[in-house]
Amino acid sequence: MYYTDKKLQFPVRVEQPNPVFARALQQAIGGIEGEIRVALQYFFQAWGCRGPAKYRDMLLTTATEELSHIEMLATAVALNLENAPLSVQEDVARDTIGGSVLNGMDFRHILSTGLAALPSDANGVPFDCSHIYATGNIAADVVANVTAEGSGRVLAVRLYNMTDDPGMKEMLSFLIARDTMHQQQWLAAIEDMGGMAASLPVPNSFPQEEEQNEFSYAFVNTFIDGVPPSEGRWTQGSSIDGKGEFSLREAAPLGEEPTLAPPRPESGAQAEQMMDKPRA
Amino acid sequence: MYYTDKKLQFPVRVEQPNPVFARALQQAIGGIEGEIRVALQYFFQAWGCRGPAKYRDMLLTTATEELSHIEMLATAVALNLENAPLSVQEDVARDTIGGSVLNGMDFRHILSTGLAALPSDANGVPFDCSHIYATGNIAADVVANVTAEGSGRVLAVRLYNMTDDPGMKEMLSFLIARDTMHQQQWLAAIEDMGGMAASLPVPNSFPQEEEQNEFSYAFVNTFIDGVPPSEGRWTQGSSIDGKGEFSLREAAPLGEEPTLAPPRPESGAQAEQMMDKPRA
Amino acid sequence: MYYTDKKLQFPVRVEQPNPVFARALQQAIGGIEGEIRVALQYFFQAWGCRGPAKYRDMLLTTATEELSHIEMLATAVALNLENAPLSVQEDVARDTIGGSVLNGMDFRHILSTGLAALPSDANGVPFDCSHIYATGNIAADVVANVTAEGSGRVLAVRLYNMTDDPGMKEMLSFLIARDTMHQQQWLAAIEDMGGMAASLPVPNSFPQEEEQNEFSYAFVNTFIDGVPPSEGRWTQGSSIDGKGEFSLREAAPLGEEPTLAPPRPESGAQAEQMMDKPRA
Amino acid sequence: MYYTDKKLQFPVRVEQPNPVFARALQQAIGGIEGEIRVALQYFFQAWGCRGPAKYRDMLLTTATEELSHIEMLATAVALNLENAPLSVQEDVARDTIGGSVLNGMDFRHILSTGLAALPSDANGVPFDCSHIYATGNIAADVVANVTAEGSGRVLAVRLYNMTDDPGMKEMLSFLIARDTMHQQQWLAAIEDMGGMAASLPVPNSFPQEEEQNEFSYAFVNTFIDGVPPSEGRWTQGSSIDGKGEFSLREAAPLGEEPTLAPPRPESGAQAEQMMDKPRA
Amino acid sequence: MYYTDKKLQFPVRVEQPNPVFARALQQAIGGIEGEIRVALQYFFQAWGCRGPAKYRDMLLTTATEELSHIEMLATAVALNLENAPLSVQEDVARDTIGGSVLNGMDFRHILSTGLAALPSDANGVPFDCSHIYATGNIAADVVANVTAEGSGRVLAVRLYNMTDDPGMKEMLSFLIARDTMHQQQWLAAIEDMGGMAASLPVPNSFPQEEEQNEFSYAFVNTFIDGVPPSEGRWTQGSSIDGKGEFSLREAAPLGEEPTLAPPRPESGAQAEQMMDKPRA
Amino acid sequence: MYYTDKKLQFPVRVEQPNPVFARALQQAIGGIEGEIRVALQYFFQAWGCRGPAKYRDMLLTTATEELSHIEMLATAVALNLENAPLSVQEDVARDTIGGSVLNGMDFRHILSTGLAALPSDANGVPFDCSHIYATGNIAADVVANVTAEGSGRVLAVRLYNMTDDPGMKEMLSFLIARDTMHQQQWLAAIEDMGGMAASLPVPNSFPQEEEQNEFSYAFVNTFIDGVPPSEGRWTQGSSIDGKGEFSLREAAPLGEEPTLAPPRPESGAQAEQMMDKPRA
Repeated sequence: MYYTDKKLQFPVRVEQPNPVFARALQQAIGGIEGEIRVALQYFFQAWGCRGPAKYRDMLLTTATEELSHIEMLATAVALNLENAPLSVQEDVARDTIGGSVLNGMDFRHILSTGLAALPSDANGVPFDCSHIYATGNIAADVVANVTAEGSGRVLAVRLYNMTDDPGMKEMLSFLIARDTMHQQQWLAAIEDMGGMAASLPVPNSFPQEEEQNEFSYAFVNTFIDGVPPSEGRWTQGSSIDGKGEFSLREAAPLGEEPTLAPPRPESGAQAEQMMDKPRA
Repeated sequence: MYYTDKKLQFPVRVEQPNPVFARALQQAIGGIEGEIRVALQYFFQAWGCRGPAKYRDMLLTTATEELSHIEMLATAVALNLENAPLSVQEDVARDTIGGSVLNGMDFRHILSTGLAALPSDANGVPFDCSHIYATGNIAADVVANVTAEGSGRVLAVRLYNMTDDPGMKEMLSFLIARDTMHQQQWLAAIEDMGGMAASLPVPNSFPQEEEQNEFSYAFVNTFIDGVPPSEGRWTQGSSIDGKGEFSLREAAPLGEEPTLAPPRPESGAQAEQMMDKPRA
Repeated sequence: MYYTDKKLQFPVRVEQPNPVFARALQQAIGGIEGEIRVALQYFFQAWGCRGPAKYRDMLLTTATEELSHIEMLATAVALNLENAPLSVQEDVARDTIGGSVLNGMDFRHILSTGLAALPSDANGVPFDCSHIYATGNIAADVVANVTAEGSGRVLAVRLYNMTDDPGMKEMLSFLIARDTMHQQQWLAAIEDMGGMAASLPVPNSFPQEEEQNEFSYAFVNTFIDGVPPSEGRWTQGSSIDGKGEFSLREAAPLGEEPTLAPPRPESGAQAEQMMDKPRA
Repeated sequence: MYYTDKKLQFPVRVEQPNPVFARALQQAIGGIEGEIRVALQYFFQAWGCRGPAKYRDMLLTTATEELSHIEMLATAVALNLENAPLSVQEDVARDTIGGSVLNGMDFRHILSTGLAALPSDANGVPFDCSHIYATGNIAADVVANVTAEGSGRVLAVRLYNMTDDPGMKEMLSFLIARDTMHQQQWLAAIEDMGGMAASLPVPNSFPQEEEQNEFSYAFVNTFIDGVPPSEGRWTQGSSIDGKGEFSLREAAPLGEEPTLAPPRPESGAQAEQMMDKPRA
Repeated sequence: MYYTDKKLQFPVRVEQPNPVFARALQQAIGGIEGEIRVALQYFFQAWGCRGPAKYRDMLLTTATEELSHIEMLATAVALNLENAPLSVQEDVARDTIGGSVLNGMDFRHILSTGLAALPSDANGVPFDCSHIYATGNIAADVVANVTAEGSGRVLAVRLYNMTDDPGMKEMLSFLIARDTMHQQQWLAAIEDMGGMAASLPVPNSFPQEEEQNEFSYAFVNTFIDGVPPSEGRWTQGSSIDGKGEFSLREAAPLGEEPTLAPPRPESGAQAEQMMDKPRA
Repeated sequence: MYYTDKKLQFPVRVEQPNPVFARALQQAIGGIEGEIRVALQYFFQAWGCRGPAKYRDMLLTTATEELSHIEMLATAVALNLENAPLSVQEDVARDTIGGSVLNGMDFRHILSTGLAALPSDANGVPFDCSHIYATGNIAADVVANVTAEGSGRVLAVRLYNMTDDPGMKEMLSFLIARDTMHQQQWLAAIEDMGGMAASLPVPNSFPQEEEQNEFSYAFVNTFIDGVPPSEGRWTQGSSIDGKGEFSLREAAPLGEEPTLAPPRPESGAQAEQMMDKPRA
């Protein structure tokens, strides 16, 4: 069960409202790198978590925190929209350094929300929950969470660099710090489970002798025309899980050209597809 | 530029076509854990790759390989659909152990493709390219790739466990092996860049003194009612990047209740929202 | 800011796990009538709420409650999936009254979540946040909330009627009760603002003399061939807002056939579209 | 069956074409508050309508009218796009008060339609038919229709306020009037069915004694830290349906922390999830 | 402006309701090959049509007809759902030849619509209006219409083959006939504009001397390893537009390996991407 | 299986980077008229192709070529983004002819990709694979391909007309030439199968005597009020397939007003729907 105290986790302050920056901030709310995503992802991982309770606990407590981040950003969008132009006339009358403000706005901030945030990204594309990664495999999930926090922190840094508003920079520097911690935290869960090598390959519950081992540590080179592959850690040396040796293998087909049966008469195909040889 | 030799990377063989398993296989083609996703994700990461060329090369060569995996799976779907019932009458006439085959099929395999694969998942939801993660930050990207290969291998293992067809098991054991390698390979790229600690926090190009350091290594506990957080690696000890010490911090608001300006007259709000006190 | 105590708002109990009913329950999680929708809708309405604070408060407290409902349903899905078949072999071995269980399952419950809930509907379509209605007009928003709770309670009743599991019936009877209250509550907010008549037409801040009043209370009949419209409260008597009188008006065009300029040469149209008369 | 006379329901006139306003108008065509939505929503409600024919008739006649509104708006978009810049060079040569026109345009108006309307919203997001609410419960449906007309009129008012073109203002003042009527009309249907109290709770065919009555009229307060809930009509007095008395109830869990079974060996989970205690 | 007479264009009759076939029929309503698509596609093409009025007229009249087809199919779905099981108990009690009926149903027919049609496809994926092709180029548009009618007739044929209900077969044989006509009709429009050769390449208003003519009629062979391309009409002989001669050309890159600038310091990339040589 | 040589099919050169044109180019990558679409469409058609191998070969070789086109365009986007403003400050400092550059940019080019291409259209809407048309009917498929290449060439021409950069014009003139060839090629496949008349109606394997022949060649006029239909090739003369004679037929309903059964008690409808006559 969930509770609130109506306050913000961290102060949200806008010195100079900028309705175009409000559009940029939307990416951190409803973008794939945004906070709706992490909140719901951690919630669904927690609610479906099977196994030791401590992983569920960690997921649940952080999911709840992320909800507070959406709230902060939604507030930031609304504050950046105070005084936004609502009409062509207002827009033209503004100080126009940098061009028309209306041009750069998300029109739905005017038309659909009355100057408030949307659960959409910077292009107005609504967040869609297919981005909630929750596999039921705890290692796959925490790595997905490192990914979410990695792209999330990249985004927060870019927003930080984009604005010159001190209030916004302060809020973003808090979110950046939390993204630092959350990257650490999910990797700490891997360590808690015995470390990266022990966790690999995900899922580590599948008996590896049943996979085609010849291909388990081979880097396949699909370059042709004698183009040599770039050398890197991935073509030589011991594998990361310590269970194999990296090798290099030229791409070559092991299968034949596939053959499908001809279409059946009642399957809606074209008559020519059912002829031994097509009409000349 | 790209080329083909029309052959399959690995043999695809179905001994006992199963049109319901064809539905399950769709998840590996058009699901978020599937092969269209990794192919396009690695391609877009490669095409936008800035910095040392060897990362682009690695991305490009593996992207090209993944295309061959989609081809294998699409072939597997088509082969599982040979002899599928096309009508109510045919369905009823079949051996009905396990119930009506039609009930468990993806109807679009009959209606939309004429017994061939769709670029959709096991529920018929088409793949959508918002799942192509390509941030322009190489560390964020390769971690996203470990995620893709982790959930991909979990999926392949579940498909392997679901079927009893020897041909399908053989094909899946190859794909499982490739997912093993690809998990290794993306982690090897991290090692190539100096290791996980050096790569963190992603992006490591942001000056960490500008973030609110007080919150960078603190695990925030949002549990109330005196519920203690579970202990784990994430609440104590040195942080994974070696730059801080994990601590535990009770959730508490640092901000106040947010206040937005009242709606403006021309903003389409309700009159009552603009009154000092609403009508009694 | 948000908090949790890890417990469920109401007990969730499944006596006889039914993996097909798990699919049905998904509609109440990720369907358009479901709980993700109301939780996020009330949150976004609250976070963007301008005007008297009491509306924000009401929205925020109920949003937080709805989050607990998603948790209950996600738990119910996971419990219904305990013992679900994971393979063709297992499926065939089950008691098969009612046919193959696998056929009726959401395959992603096996393949994507490891027997846990998805943020998707009963057809596996992920919830998409375009369904979060938050207009910035408090009357429009609370009516949208009555809609959400109305379709939500219809859904809960249908799920209640579909199952014979006493635990599931008990949980659903709680959710049905909450939907009763929430319908009341949003209508109470209308009353709080002076009642339905005073709130109409939404938005009531627009000077009604600027609209084409001739059409403001006329029921337009588009039936032809002398088909008379059905009589109803909407064709006669005083209007609901008490500001007009309903009338009946036969559909008839007031405008002409529209004329667009011919395509411009550089606009990518076909040459024939730019000719005075097309080639014969 | 359907018919047309090729004319517009109301004249559509643009004095000063504005390609940026064309983008704004898209919200009224393909936005969730737009006309494709209401047209299809009323059609699907009508086509699936069970019960007295007069509701089907009302739905069908208004659905048919809404189709004429899409036509008006699509014409308005095309007329606003006459003379839009098609190239960088043209754009720079224009009078640039308010900045580059191209910047503020929907590029697909140039690239995809050759200066005509799209079935998309102001951000170019295509309309998706999940927004067609048609539950088979007539009360739920007409409330959904009030919602659609409420948010639709809010949108039309905002568009009216945004433009200074007399032709556009005239067209919008007609659409605003129709939205006034349609709000009335759907509420009149409620009155026709015995009034709001008799219709509640939706669906009113469910025996209310089967719901957990203790929670049917209680406002649950999820605020913690001694934050008192705002007082409002919803915490005291008789309920809107006259069947209960509003009360206030502090949020408290009635259920326990949920417990899921550990993952099964073949379910693709991580080995550590299946251990009694995870690896140290 | 639009009108209706409430009657069906063609009789819709179901002798033996089949709720699973109702799911299949959904593809013809909300599938990409379905009737919502053609109706809206022809409407949007008509409303944006620039050039001779006769094309707009043809588009508009057929669009209006297609609306009547959606109505027929929606009625057919509702009739197939009469007597569908609403609960587990009912389902088990039915005659179970062919397995559980519930398993094969679209659950939203029970849960979301109360036994009526959805604007979705056979997998429950809602129709999305990105499928409305309306380019502003009349030749591109009518070819898109042939495509729509081609895939539409293929679908109708498959549905016809799937059912054994005489009423459904009769209705489908009417829709198949209309798809025949509509294929003819759009091709007749090409003939009306001077024929296929005169219309090519679409758009025929672009001066063909500005394209890289060397590649305008060359079939590029991307097969490697000495695999010869299949011979066909497309590698030899006069081109279809009569303006060139088909030739065969081996795939070979004309460009170099692309080089992007290194990432800029403030762009959120990883430090290693900005180093001349990455950390060893 | 697939291979690459890392080089571009044709040189991609940008003389004057234009980040707003980068947004326009996105339509050719991730738009419905774009290159992801044709690449995947031809691949899926090839992988599911039943019947003579030469059609599969043609599809496969061209699919592989299209992949090289995505690569060219992704490179073009990245090159147009070199030197794009990353912050408000940078933007204001630029030469501002034509207004703020930031306003016209796709913000995700800054925030999500670090100045590289997205698999999305010019409005940031991600490509979704429902647009992959692959019906299993070779004639339906190649006509769909003509459609794709027709709208694709219209788009390429519009992009060509939009830019004044010589490098971009050169690249686009190559893509325009390829779209010319591909239109030819798919029509050549029709010729190869016996020509358009022989291929019609698609699918030509359905016995046409089973369709309602009375409607197979009749143009239905839905105009009322004595509006005569425009004359055209489609109302008179021999049909395109040579199997019928076009005729004109006034729209008139052949069916009655549809009647659905009243709602069942447990179906969640409103009580008033189940009454013989609704409450007065």
